[in-house]
Amino acid sequence: MLENIKSPSDIKNLTQDEVNSLVLEVRREILRECADGGGHLASNLGIVEATIALHRVFNSPNDSIIFDVGHQCYAHKLLTGRYDKFNTLRRFGGISGFTNREESEHDFLTAGHSGSALPTALGIARANAQSGNDNWAVAVIGDGSFTNGMVFEALNCCAESNAKLIILLNDNEMSISKNVGAMSGYFSRLRNSRKYFRFKKKFQNSVSHLPGGKKLVMMFYHIKEFFKRLLVPTNVFENLGLYYLGPVNGNDEEKMEALLREAKTKNRCTIIHMLTVKGSGYEKAEQHPENYHFTSKFDVNEGVKPGTEQSYSTVMGEYLCEMRAKNPKICAVTAAMEKGTGLSIFRDKFQNSFYDVGIAEECAVTFAGGLAIGGMLPVCALYSTFMQRTFDQLLEDVSLQNTHVIMAIDRAGLVPGDGVTHQGVFDVAMLSAIPNTTIYSPESYNELKYSFDCAEKGDGLWAIRYPKGCEADYNRSVFKAVDKDNTVFATDCEDAEITIITYGRITADVVKAAKISGKKIRIIRLLKVNPVDFKTVLNLCNNTKILVVEEGIRRGGVGEAIAAAAGQADYKNTVSIHALESGFVPHGDIANIMVFCDLSPEKIAEKINML
Amino acid sequence: MLENIKSPSDIKNLTQDEVNSLVLEVRREILRECADGGGHLASNLGIVEATIALHRVFNSPNDSIIFDVGHQCYAHKLLTGRYDKFNTLRRFGGISGFTNREESEHDFLTAGHSGSALPTALGIARANAQSGNDNWAVAVIGDGSFTNGMVFEALNCCAESNAKLIILLNDNEMSISKNVGAMSGYFSRLRNSRKYFRFKKKFQNSVSHLPGGKKLVMMFYHIKEFFKRLLVPTNVFENLGLYYLGPVNGNDEEKMEALLREAKTKNRCTIIHMLTVKGSGYEKAEQHPENYHFTSKFDVNEGVKPGTEQSYSTVMGEYLCEMRAKNPKICAVTAAMEKGTGLSIFRDKFQNSFYDVGIAEECAVTFAGGLAIGGMLPVCALYSTFMQRTFDQLLEDVSLQNTHVIMAIDRAGLVPGDGVTHQGVFDVAMLSAIPNTTIYSPESYNELKYSFDCAEKGDGLWAIRYPKGCEADYNRSVFKAVDKDNTVFATDCEDAEITIITYGRITADVVKAAKISGKKIRIIRLLKVNPVDFKTVLNLCNNTKILVVEEGIRRGGVGEAIAAAAGQADYKNTVSIHALESGFVPHGDIANIMVFCDLSPEKIAEKINML
Repeated sequence: MLENIKSPSDIKNLTQDEVNSLVLEVRREILRECADGGGHLASNLGIVEATIALHRVFNSPNDSIIFDVGHQCYAHKLLTGRYDKFNTLRRFGGISGFTNREESEHDFLTAGHSGSALPTALGIARANAQSGNDNWAVAVIGDGSFTNGMVFEALNCCAESNAKLIILLNDNEMSISKNVGAMSGYFSRLRNSRKYFRFKKKFQNSVSHLPGGKKLVMMFYHIKEFFKRLLVPTNVFENLGLYYLGPVNGNDEEKMEALLREAKTKNRCTIIHMLTVKGSGYEKAEQHPENYHFTSKFDVNEGVKPGTEQSYSTVMGEYLCEMRAKNPKICAVTAAMEKGTGLSIFRDKFQNSFYDVGIAEECAVTFAGGLAIGGMLPVCALYSTFMQRTFDQLLEDVSLQNTHVIMAIDRAGLVPGDGVTHQGVFDVAMLSAIPNTTIYSPESYNELKYSFDCAEKGDGLWAIRYPKGCEADYNRSVFKAVDKDNTVFATDCEDAEITIITYGRITADVVKAAKISGKKIRIIRLLKVNPVDFKTVLNLCNNTKILVVEEGIRRGGVGEAIAAAAGQADYKNTVSIHALESGFVPHGDIANIMVFCDLSPEKIAEKINML
Repeated sequence: MLENIKSPSDIKNLTQDEVNSLVLEVRREILRECADGGGHLASNLGIVEATIALHRVFNSPNDSIIFDVGHQCYAHKLLTGRYDKFNTLRRFGGISGFTNREESEHDFLTAGHSGSALPTALGIARANAQSGNDNWAVAVIGDGSFTNGMVFEALNCCAESNAKLIILLNDNEMSISKNVGAMSGYFSRLRNSRKYFRFKKKFQNSVSHLPGGKKLVMMFYHIKEFFKRLLVPTNVFENLGLYYLGPVNGNDEEKMEALLREAKTKNRCTIIHMLTVKGSGYEKAEQHPENYHFTSKFDVNEGVKPGTEQSYSTVMGEYLCEMRAKNPKICAVTAAMEKGTGLSIFRDKFQNSFYDVGIAEECAVTFAGGLAIGGMLPVCALYSTFMQRTFDQLLEDVSLQNTHVIMAIDRAGLVPGDGVTHQGVFDVAMLSAIPNTTIYSPESYNELKYSFDCAEKGDGLWAIRYPKGCEADYNRSVFKAVDKDNTVFATDCEDAEITIITYGRITADVVKAAKISGKKIRIIRLLKVNPVDFKTVLNLCNNTKILVVEEGIRRGGVGEAIAAAAGQADYKNTVSIHALESGFVPHGDIANIMVFCDLSPEKIAEKINML
């Protein structure tokens, strides 16, 4: 059926049997593609029926359907004219694994970060109201995202509006780790609420047979209404002035449609509490959804194999355990990135020193600051892209307090399949603007460990940034430390005509580029990228042409800091910067992305030869 | 009494009569100081009794009392050894108007931004638990801050902890504008909950006299428990797993003490809902608390006079009304800064195009992005310091979406009395790192209007930044536009030996400094500070020495961008930058702060003469 669906209008007139067949076909296609090329399997399998129901009840793109984070949009893509490109998912030049405005008029938000869907949908709904049109806005939000403060901030503003806004809470009970947060416990009580309604009915029936019983039922109603209006409206959402519908089985397309149509009859913002099964329809994923949240390619019959590959993340997690064993003040803090940052091992070994605050990066950083005020040494592990949420918290709640906090920044630099919303290319510029921040950019596992040793001995705010994946394989012995602290390294080249300054993962490519260029080049590699030891670095450059190569944005980066130091020192040669101009870099494998960004060895060599 | 109170231990053994006298004395002192020198009067008058109760029940600094935002700490300062310095409040070299770690061991957080107290207190409480001590952490949070997402994020993590943590919700019904947010309506229902308890008692009494009544009361209890456990715990906070006490009259010291002591007996995180009267004890402030939230100096008998002074904020508010009258797509968005940003007039005139999301900057920006996606042209007005909260939202939810959003950034540059947490000196560095962001830094009212005209005609993310207060008075005609767009201006000086490049308010001081120095200087003033028109600027500099003067941080600022452009172009002279090294600048009048920052005309002249 899918090959004939060019837009959502093609599914509006299907019979229920056809819809049920479509569900299976969409699910098969998602499973096939994730097995072939990897992707967010479990959440996408779970939301197939709801997506079909949404596109049957609403008229995209007049109505705006916005998926929070956006990784659960595969069925949406298949129903909005992207079936023929679906086998290019997450591949370079292919369609994104997230919603993307450049891809389709049905994608309203180029998504990737949690909590953005609701304020965006609220804005669209208000704009619709002002424009006087009858269009709807729908925000689809997973239960995990409900730990995010921005969702709450927007919920607080939904009630007043008579806007045509529906919030679809996709409760799959798995998006956050067990025991993380009171909201998850609350959702579970809400799921059980049907029991209460059955009990209430039984109570009323028995009471009305007693003498004076009918009067009592009325009194009961009064007290219930009083209860409701003054003190205890049915639930948190009603407390916030929303109309609440549910819980509903989100894997039942017919019921979903019915409830969505009911919501459309209300004249106020409605939240629909939908229960879905992560991995629905693929038994292995249903049984172990945590292994299927994101998969690399795998064999459908065998299922995914647990990854055992060493990476910067696993090395960090293991080394932090070693450090904690010696220093009981060390705590680990994360924001729903326990697995991704390699902290599961730490959690298992030192449960009382491990804190996961849910998808709430701001809280993670300020909370870490509080731990430090209380005398602990917190290590807060976040992905570079999500740390962007914490500029103010790092500045005001950590740096200004002059407390000792270590940020472990994973996925720093370019990332492959997740693409434009997940690139870790802003952290150096962002962190450098924060006073008194020491930034290390290690380039091997050993150096990662050394960086943590330095950070433990140091004080104030430290940031240690390292890429996704494993260390590069090349001959590091060409570099020798040139300062006593081992933070600046250089290759041997007394008669260099060009000095290249670089840091982090791209160093290996710079070494290759220097060879390709055939020029006489000294390479300086910085471990400490902020503050840079300008005197040592500029001395080494010795008035040769300088080229700074960065796997990060130019504006506010290390290159500009070096250029400013050189300008002040009246440096007698050009200082050029080869870095990202914008930082909005699409998805694909790292090799292709590097070419796209002019950061492959060949492209860097070209730049060298143009100097 | 106050002169004898050197630390909180001095108030522990006072009789209730003495306490009541102390309340009056503290209140008199706060009123005197605010009338003499200005300050946050109303909130501080309201919280006197609660502060005394806190310091009698808890043992600061073993126990940590943390005030959210921190502007309501005057009584706390008077009770913790700062009475003799209280007449230096908010003055240069004097004590801060906010809690400040450098000032006292009783100040745990150098505060200023909303929502930080609870995650910090939670961190301290967890650290206390890990250290095995018996100390308490208390977070004092105004009802306005409960619209802030970080408070919710932290609330979500409080329940699990058996930490010794108390949340004191200071509900004065005034901290946010009326009709802003569902939480404020919820608090008002909660305040009325006492009525319910009285009704419940009456119900039980009447029912138990009926035949079978006692059985019914038991059934009622069961259903209530069912209600409570499954579906409708008493309130939102209990839903989040907290123990809830209150509401209590926070202006009754004895009752406050009793409830705080009760909270200390619980083995779980407790929230105390305290009702206080803003401006309590000063009739004029009780009647019009909105005029007394912050006051400049005033006559106690006459009360404050409404300010009518023109400022960048008032000009912005009025001009936005003019723009809206012509362009119905224009909307205004703010985050509890309606008055401060001059938007009250816009709200009055165009209520349906005005949105205040509460103290929720992140939501404000992403919501503005949603309005833009929906076809509106939103102008989001925030103070520079609070905009720091929105780095990721501006980057991901606006710039990446390529929508047309205008940020009106008030209080950009140095601010006087509020001090270190409120300085607007990071915005240029922060915004410049965001791709495709146009930043204008107007330097007069006319230029402010011109900037908004340009922004309206432009596309993508625009930021217009301007200082607190009014435009400088000096002879602007020395500057002539040198580009067709009127974004680069220069003074006439054909034989200059030095070129100074600057922007924004400090331009007037740079003009003075150039005169003081006696050197031959051309001054270039940038209206557009990002992206800088490097070619035009460097051509004008004509290989003279360049000095960039910035009222903002050096790292990531305009100076570094210019130095990098000069370095690339092999500019034949030094490029120096005179800017803030750290951005952590204390409070005081602007003249003194400028000297402190080496940015007074004389200090800039010194720098010029050292070139």
